[in-house]
Amino acid sequence: MSFADRLIDAVRTKNTPLCIGIDPFVDKIPTALFGNAREDTSAVLKFSASIIDLAREYSGVVKPQLGLFEQFGEMGYATARLITEQARAASLIVILDAKRGDIGTTAEGYARATLGPSPGFDADCVTINPYLGLDTLEPFIATAQANAKGVAILVRTSNPGAGDVQDLQVGGAPVWRRVAEMLSPQQARLQGASGWSGLMAVAGATYPEEARMLRDALPHSLFLVPGYGAQGASAADAVSGFVKTPRGLEGGVVSSSRAVSYPPAAQSAANMNEWRAAIREAMAGAAAELRAACAA
Amino acid sequence: MSFADRLIDAVRTKNTPLCIGIDPFVDKIPTALFGNAREDTSAVLKFSASIIDLAREYSGVVKPQLGLFEQFGEMGYATARLITEQARAASLIVILDAKRGDIGTTAEGYARATLGPSPGFDADCVTINPYLGLDTLEPFIATAQANAKGVAILVRTSNPGAGDVQDLQVGGAPVWRRVAEMLSPQQARLQGASGWSGLMAVAGATYPEEARMLRDALPHSLFLVPGYGAQGASAADAVSGFVKTPRGLEGGVVSSSRAVSYPPAAQSAANMNEWRAAIREAMAGAAAELRAACAA
Repeated sequence: MSFADRLIDAVRTKNTPLCIGIDPFVDKIPTALFGNAREDTSAVLKFSASIIDLAREYSGVVKPQLGLFEQFGEMGYATARLITEQARAASLIVILDAKRGDIGTTAEGYARATLGPSPGFDADCVTINPYLGLDTLEPFIATAQANAKGVAILVRTSNPGAGDVQDLQVGGAPVWRRVAEMLSPQQARLQGASGWSGLMAVAGATYPEEARMLRDALPHSLFLVPGYGAQGASAADAVSGFVKTPRGLEGGVVSSSRAVSYPPAAQSAANMNEWRAAIREAMAGAAAELRAACAA
Repeated sequence: MSFADRLIDAVRTKNTPLCIGIDPFVDKIPTALFGNAREDTSAVLKFSASIIDLAREYSGVVKPQLGLFEQFGEMGYATARLITEQARAASLIVILDAKRGDIGTTAEGYARATLGPSPGFDADCVTINPYLGLDTLEPFIATAQANAKGVAILVRTSNPGAGDVQDLQVGGAPVWRRVAEMLSPQQARLQGASGWSGLMAVAGATYPEEARMLRDALPHSLFLVPGYGAQGASAADAVSGFVKTPRGLEGGVVSSSRAVSYPPAAQSAANMNEWRAAIREAMAGAAAELRAACAA
């Protein structure tokens, strides 16, 4: 089954496009419950595993943020691999947020490292950067195509400086639009029976108008929408690049990390039961809010 | 001492801008001499350590290609860290070719992972991607500034598809030129007593005219020039973005990987002595060719 079909199935089954980010912030992981993440990666492992264990009740998709694991060196890298394995064993789809991008044989190395089997992550999808050109995305797309996996290409991001390069005007359209046009012919290679393509586009929720323009350029691509929750975008903004279907709005997943992993009630929890209850409440709230936005 | 001054000192001391790439290609590492790199990362470690041991005779700078290590999972990641430590202990400057780029706290994570002390790589410099905007480069630049380190920003790369995004025309100039203009005010933050800045720009040797235009936009930035040797650019092309000084042409380092790590005579070597002799000959040849191009 293609990655695109698996992803849209997960969204339909859970009836929400929520994707739960796995972001181990050393200063926010409650020390009393998990140990000191500054000193011990086992605290990172325990915390991330606990988030995944709860995530599967509310979402079909998780997104580990690799950079936050790599700050712990190879132990962090190994932790991210273990977490990915755990999530996949729990039938969660894993979008590895690695933001890789390199040329030639090195791109092949990264494609194997992220999408390939052990010692690779064997992730379902990986985020990649298009600045180096289409030939540098090819090893990732080819690996995805051969293994029923996906890629999520950074087209228009959600950070304050996203426009510095992405919004430069090229013949009346921004760079990100030209990137989308460059990617458009590739959609078919990762298209599933559902019609959706696993050549995903990252479309920041903080820029809903751009998401609609991006949808015009990439009608089949599933979107990976960051920026919902802690970064300030509303649920309605987050799904602005989705399209109307008989099931409601559909067309991708919306990731939430900080809001569902570090809600205030979890930060002040006295024990694991209280912590779990707080995380469940935050996850259920985000899932429901996005469900409602898609139904509207 | 600033990174820029350390780098230019290394170039002057060795009297060549040669930077030796550490690229472990599993299919090219001689099995009889190092073990089977497909099955055992200790072969990768032994090979990379042997290259570094020879590199310091001919160059002051090495560039490990992280993606080729990551394909071995956390053992590969650990190997890259060990190699970096070995190179720094041998007084070599390490430019970690990681091509990272992410937003906010994740960018901080990658900055710690690459430039920070153990469990970080503690590399002297890291390659980063500018597509996500200046705010995403800031954690790397700030970390470099605080720790006398450098960053090498992908401005104009050397691969066949480099122009897909980088050459899009924005008001009469290509995107990469706008990226250079965006970076220009940052040069001073990493500028050393030599006048050179450790805010390096990656300037592909396969496009010498672009390198000259890039020099105009970034007069103080040291260049990291890939594409020399196996990718087809000549030594003269490779230093086309350098500037005339009383010492000859100066202004960055030129990396060579495959040509100095896998010359035919090394591939067919019967023993380590023959292998070392072949590697030495290739490294000496590249160092001399670049020395001559800078003297011309």
